[in-house]
Parts: sequence; C-alpha cells; structure tokens
Amino acid sequence: MGLEDKLSELKARVTELSTLGEVMALLNWDQACYMPPGASEDRARQMAALGALIHDKATAPEMGQLVEDLAAELGDLNADTLEAREVYLAKERFEKTAKVPRELALEIIAAEARGHDTWVKAKRENDFAVFAPDLKRIFDLAKARAEYFKPYDHVYDVLLDDYERGMKTAEVQAVFNWLKPRQTELVRRILQAPQPDDSFLERDYDLEGQRKVGEYAVRKMGYDLNEGRIDRSDHPFTTSIGRGDVRFTMRYLPSVRSSLMAHMHEGGHALHSQGLNPEWRGMYLRRGPSSGIAESQSRLWENLVGRSREFWAFFMPVMQATFPEHLASVSAEQMYRGLNRVENSLIRIEADEATYNLHVMLRMELEIALLEGNLETRDLPEAWNEKMRANLGLTPPTDSLGVLQDMHWSSGLIGYFPTYSLGNLYASQFWNQLLKEQPGIPDQVARGEFGNVLEWMREKVHRVGTRYDPQVILERATGERLNPKYYMDYLTEKYTEIYGL
Amino acid sequence: MGLEDKLSELKARVTELSTLGEVMALLNWDQACYMPPGASEDRARQMAALGALIHDKATAPEMGQLVEDLAAELGDLNADTLEAREVYLAKERFEKTAKVPRELALEIIAAEARGHDTWVKAKRENDFAVFAPDLKRIFDLAKARAEYFKPYDHVYDVLLDDYERGMKTAEVQAVFNWLKPRQTELVRRILQAPQPDDSFLERDYDLEGQRKVGEYAVRKMGYDLNEGRIDRSDHPFTTSIGRGDVRFTMRYLPSVRSSLMAHMHEGGHALHSQGLNPEWRGMYLRRGPSSGIAESQSRLWENLVGRSREFWAFFMPVMQATFPEHLASVSAEQMYRGLNRVENSLIRIEADEATYNLHVMLRMELEIALLEGNLETRDLPEAWNEKMRANLGLTPPTDSLGVLQDMHWSSGLIGYFPTYSLGNLYASQFWNQLLKEQPGIPDQVARGEFGNVLEWMREKVHRVGTRYDPQVILERATGERLNPKYYMDYLTEKYTEIYGL
Repeated sequence: MGLEDKLSELKARVTELSTLGEVMALLNWDQACYMPPGASEDRARQMAALGALIHDKATAPEMGQLVEDLAAELGDLNADTLEAREVYLAKERFEKTAKVPRELALEIIAAEARGHDTWVKAKRENDFAVFAPDLKRIFDLAKARAEYFKPYDHVYDVLLDDYERGMKTAEVQAVFNWLKPRQTELVRRILQAPQPDDSFLERDYDLEGQRKVGEYAVRKMGYDLNEGRIDRSDHPFTTSIGRGDVRFTMRYLPSVRSSLMAHMHEGGHALHSQGLNPEWRGMYLRRGPSSGIAESQSRLWENLVGRSREFWAFFMPVMQATFPEHLASVSAEQMYRGLNRVENSLIRIEADEATYNLHVMLRMELEIALLEGNLETRDLPEAWNEKMRANLGLTPPTDSLGVLQDMHWSSGLIGYFPTYSLGNLYASQFWNQLLKEQPGIPDQVARGEFGNVLEWMREKVHRVGTRYDPQVILERATGERLNPKYYMDYLTEKYTEIYGL
Repeated sequence: MGLEDKLSELKARVTELSTLGEVMALLNWDQACYMPPGASEDRARQMAALGALIHDKATAPEMGQLVEDLAAELGDLNADTLEAREVYLAKERFEKTAKVPRELALEIIAAEARGHDTWVKAKRENDFAVFAPDLKRIFDLAKARAEYFKPYDHVYDVLLDDYERGMKTAEVQAVFNWLKPRQTELVRRILQAPQPDDSFLERDYDLEGQRKVGEYAVRKMGYDLNEGRIDRSDHPFTTSIGRGDVRFTMRYLPSVRSSLMAHMHEGGHALHSQGLNPEWRGMYLRRGPSSGIAESQSRLWENLVGRSREFWAFFMPVMQATFPEHLASVSAEQMYRGLNRVENSLIRIEADEATYNLHVMLRMELEIALLEGNLETRDLPEAWNEKMRANLGLTPPTDSLGVLQDMHWSSGLIGYFPTYSLGNLYASQFWNQLLKEQPGIPDQVARGEFGNVLEWMREKVHRVGTRYDPQVILERATGERLNPKYYMDYLTEKYTEIYGL
C-alpha cells in the first residue's frame, strides 16, 4: 500500500470515528432536549454500547499499525504540511486512547453515565451525600487513568492536556497567580463604587420574545439555521451532530439577564463549528483545537461584542420593539451598564466578567487538591465554601448553590474548568489584535454589522481547525503566545469607565 | 461454556444489537422531526455507518457459532420453551442476515438512504422520472437479495416473510381473492346510497386543539407519556428508541378528519410496544411478532374503537368542548356517520375502511409484477393509474397523488403493504373474540373506559411478543387462524346500518 492509499485508509477510519461521535452527540442532545424521563436507563445503555464501539475502533491494532506506518513513512511529523499534521494528530489520539486499558476506559464511561444521574438527583435534593460516592469514583478513575501517562510533571497536566493541547498546569497557575490579586483588587474597588441600576432586567420577560431576539442576534452574527437549530434544555450547550448540523440549546427564565448573552455565547461556539474548513472533511485537522480556543469564540461574542456599548447602540431598538412595556424608557446606555454590573455571586455561569475567573480558580485548586490526595471528596463541600468565602466573600447557603452547581465533574470533565478562563484571555487577545488591524470594528458593531468580525475569526481561528496547537494559533493571529495583560487591561478600562474608578 | 453461559452470551449479543437498533431509531426519528435541512448528507453517512456496524455484529462468525452450538445443545427448537424459541429466533435472524453478502447488504442500505431523498424530491416536484432510477435499483437489489433465499415457492415469499413470519404469497392472494369481489360489491352498493354529511370535518380546526384532544385520547387508551412523547413530522409513525422510550409522531391539517384517528392509530402501535414483556429484556422474544400483528393493534384502536358509535358517545363532548364554534351543533351520531363516509379516493392512508384494502391489493399486484419481470419500473405510473381505474374508478391527476404517494418503496419496504390489510383482518378477528368473551366492552367504550380492551390485548398480544408466530398468536387468542369473514361481516354490518343498504 502506497502513501496515498494509507492516507485514504486513515481518512476512512477517522471518518467512521467522527461519524460515530456525531451519533453519540445526537444521543446527548436528545437526552438533554426531548428524551422522556422513563428512558434514562435506556440512554445510559445506548451510550455505553456506542462508547465501547468507538473505543474499540479507536484502539484497533490496525489503526495503530497504520499510524505507525504513516509516521515512519513521513518522517518528521512536526513538518509544516497537512499530511504530517494529520498523522501527528492521529498518532497522538491513538496513543492516548490505546494507553488506557479497555476495561478502565469502559468503567470510566459507565461511571460518568451513572454520575450524571446521581448528580442531577443530588442537586435537585440538595444532598451532596447522594453524589459523593460516584464523585469519589470518578476522581479515582481519573487518577487511575493518569497513571498510564507517567512520567508527567504534574498529574493535572494529563487531564488538562485532554482539553488544551500542550498547556501545562504550571503555566496556568502562573497566569492565575498573576491575575488573581489584580482581579480581586479590581473587584474590591468596583464594589466600593455606586452600583448601576439593573432592576429592569428582572421583570417578567415573555419567553417567546426572548427566543426571538436571541435568534435574531445569532442570525445577525452569521449563524446558519439551515444547518443548525435552537432547542431548550436545562443547561445551554452547543453540539456538532454533523458537518451541516450544528445545534445549540437555550434555557429561558423570566429575567432577560442571561438568555440573550447565552444565545450569543452558544452562537459563538456554533459559528466556530460551522466555520471549520470543509475541505478537511474526515480529518482530525477539521476539529476545534482546544476547549480554550472554543471558549474564546463564545466569550468573544458574549462579552467583547455582546456586553459592549456599541452592540447596545445597535440592539437596544430591537429589544425595545420586542419588549416595549419593559424597556421603552430604558436607554441603551442604561442597558449597557446594567448588563455589566459587577457583584460577588454564587453561580459561575451567571458571574460577570470581573469575577468569573475567580470561580474558575477555586475549581482548579480543588481539583488539584483532590488529585494530589490533599483533600477527600467527602470534605469537598466544606473546602468549597471556605474558598468561596476567601475568593468571593460569600458562603453558599446550600450545596446546590455551591459545590453541586456544575455538571462537569459528574461527566468526568476534570481539568476542563481552566479552559473557560483561558477562553476569556484568548478572546481579549484576539479582540485587541482585531481592533489594531481594523479600528473601524466598533463602529460596525454599532451598526449591527458583524461580517468583518466573523471573517477575521474564520480566517484566524475557525478555518485553522487543529492545523496548529492553541498557542501557535494565538501567536500566528496576534504575534504572541498567551498574555493575560490584554484581558486585565480590558477589564480595567471597561470598569474604570463604568464605575468611574 | 455451559448452556446457561451460552444463553447469557446470546442475551449480551442480542442486547447489543437491539441497543444499536434503538440508536438507529433515534437517527430516523430526529431526521423526521427535528434535523435541519442541511444535514441530510450527514444523516445518510451516519445511518450507513451504523447500519454496517449492525450488519457486521449480526453476521459475526462468533454469533453463527453460538446459535449453532445452542441449537445443537437444545435439540428441538420447536419445543414450547422460552429457551428453544429464543434460539430459534436468533438462528433464523442470523441465517437470514448472513445469507446476504455484506457488499449487497450495504448496497441496499445506501440505495434506500438515497432513494428516500429522491422520492421526497420526486413527490414534491411531481416528477416520477426523478425517482425512477433509484426505484429500479431498489427493486433490482431486492431481487438480487431474494436469490440467496432459493428455493422458494414465489420470490415475493422471501420479502413478505421479512414482515409477516410464515405468511405465504399464495395465502395472501387467496384471502385477497375472496375479499376483493365482496368489498368491491359492498362499495358499489354503498355508493348508490345517499352520503352522510361530513362537511363539518373540513372546517379550519386549531392545530393545538387537535394536538390536545389527540393526546387526551391516547392517554385515555393507556399510553404512558412518561415513557414516550408525541412530536410532529410529515408522515406519522411510531418508533421504539428504548424500552422506556416509545414515541410517535403526528401531522396536523386544518381538517380534523385525520388527526384524531391518526393519534389513535399510532397510539395503538405505541401501546403494543409499551406492553411488551419487561422480563424478556435483551431477547428476541421481546419484539413485535410481525407487521400485520403490529398493524392489528393500530387499526383496532383507530377503527374498531375510534370509528365506533360507542366511542363517539364518550368523545363527542370532549371534541365539542375543545372546538365549540365548529361542533356545538353537531351530534355524536352525525360525527360517527361523517367519520365513516365511504368514497373512492386516491390516497391510501386517507381511505375509509371499506375501500382501504383495495389500495393495498393494487400495490401488492404491482410489486409482484415488478419482481416477476412482467412490469418495468418506467411503466409503473401507467400501470398504477390503470389499476386505480379498475379498482377504484379513479385516475390520479398527478403521480404525486398516485404512484408517488407512499414512502415505502423508497425505503426498501417491498412486501410490506399486505400487512396493512392483514392487520385489518386480524383486528376484526381479535375484536370479535373480545366481544364474545366480554359483551360489556361497547358499553365501557361508551363511558371512555378502555382498561379491559387494553388488558385483553396486553395478555393475548402485547406480552406475547414473538413467543409465537402471528398465526399461532391469532389461533391462541381466537381459536382459529386468519379468517377474513370477520372483517367482511364487520364491514357489511357497519355500512348496512349506516347507509341503510
């Protein structure tokens, strides 16, 4: 078999794996949006069966042989060619998956399926003890899995690398150590200033109206509903069920505070997926490069665009026309200030830009303590509440509003949280560069013209796929690797102006 | 490995196959209900990949060895034990699947995926030529597949057996030959009598109201929405996505003529699936025995119950309360007569009980002519229209209202149509027996009490699963095998009264 044939075979195998991954995504989407309550056992069984199939195909000896042969034939997999990169990615994926014994991999899938159920129950009943044994099991399995990736500098590196290729725990910690005192100090100063009024956000907003303005906003951003759809679920998320099938979900509350921003957040994810290079179908290249880069796209549209003064110059009339009784007498400037109100709060996903990273840091610290054995899962609620007091000056009144708030751990997503903060930082760094290149962007946003923002992201991020590692993508787009200064400057400038610091 | 171990292994393998089948059902359901238009290529690729996996697992040599070993160990597979029956079914399924070469099986899956798309296009554009090449291909592949089942009495037997275990073409033809002159004569006499008024059915009925009364009716029948759901699609259907996940779909038109009956039809299917024996999880036993038996359950609720005078005594107030402006002055008796109006019509799924089977006979005759080589697919529209004139005295004005109306052939469902008529006949035979055993049933129906109807069906049909062949199920429940007399008597009595013949 010549090189071309081997590359074709790799493509066929990768296509099959992605195809089964899409089917898994549909199982997840349906579970969150439409599945009847009586089907949860069925769904766990279906996911376990498909998960085992995918595992077996990903670790098939023929796959191992193929990537070995291709690697040998191509020589330098760090060469700057599509073929070398694709084989590099395939080899990495194979080795990562095949290192873990099948039994352990399937145990992990089963523990996560069960863990999600018990977490839902524990959160609903505000009873951490219901979730504790599964949580312990999930962390134990994660540790057991990490064993197969020795030697490592830090056990957390193994997990982090699943979500942010090449990122090291020490690097994230250095960034967080730089940010934490600065963000804390900024928040301290903000909270001494008078708060803008945001009471108008809390009125009883018609849910269908919220859906309509949200859909209008993401269409304006460029989201193609011919190849996607928006449904409702308890927790908003975006999922790729096919190349032409990128869906996201929403949750609507009477308050309008979160739904429009959530539309733009998920819309940002969806634009990223819809913008992947169509020529790389059936290749690892055609995937998002990391969770942090993915999050940079959602946070960019949600915050840099959606929480900007310019955006509200454009969008306030749309909101007023949809909700005249609530907003006729609210100005765009009031809306801008209300949506940017800063306060210490209990819930990460509702946190403002100034405090958001503090929620993430707390989670990463706890994950590391659990993995290092310096904390037992049974002591987690206490440790959580202590850190909440230290970082945000608040004690959660219940575990549902504290340690049980996020679904991540129940689904085995350990090491994922830092990528939210990295996403914030990347987004600011991209945005800074975009404005440097195209100073007219804010004026365009104020007119509801997002084409140039999208095109820049398409070129610098979406179409790049996994052609390069996250830090290389950042460097190629902005001239430097991760630099938290851009985020801190952005926060400082924004809130100094709003709060008159 | 002892017998118990082998039976456990069989269960594990059957469970995996059913599990993947459920995932396929979800792909289908989503395609019909929610999938964005841009995803049709993705979906075909996903179905092909999953179909290939299922085929490979169903035909794995280990599966063949296992059923051989079990068959040898058990000896007589016709013995009246659960184990013997399960192994009989597993062996039959394995042999049926393994007989067909993998390449042909995958070609069939691909042709059907493409065929469905071109049929949708052809029907929308009223252009048979668009569909003709794929239709030819699908019939050619069906013939090629049948080759592997030689010797057979008739090529059509091979296809029919996929849907109605043990039924023979000659037997269906004998039944149809008996029915056809009698139904035709009944219809002739009916059409000479004055027609009941049914104009009130054609008013503009609120779709949400139709959904509500439909849901109310199926809940009353016993459909459990905790383990199911009702969505909208172009063509109503019922699907089992899990043991606790039996969904059906509906289509709503301004006319109320079909939606309530369609709810009860699909609700009947769903009750059947929800009523399968829970103790047989992971076994072939826990499946519907045939399409004809399945259809008996839907037609029973739709027609024997839903188009009965007693049902409307109970249900008319519900309809009047929901649609007062349309129905306040319409009596239950007028509704009963209106819903039972007989006329020669173009569309099978909208046909009344008196003419329905005539539509089916036409299709079976054409299928046989195509398979025998006595008809070319290109001549099909002409042959269709000729038979429509002969059987129903009508010429379809367009192919969309004629040969293109049904989706079955495009999905490879050849040999399926007769099971609709068998379902009608089975339903009447079951119903006749039920009334003999429990003469109080009509009074119960008139009070909206369906518990005893459901319990009888649960015991005689639903919980029986595939424990017995269709004809045996019929015989055990009613004391005799298929006898079309019950259906003909039912029709004659019903219409003689309504039309005063």
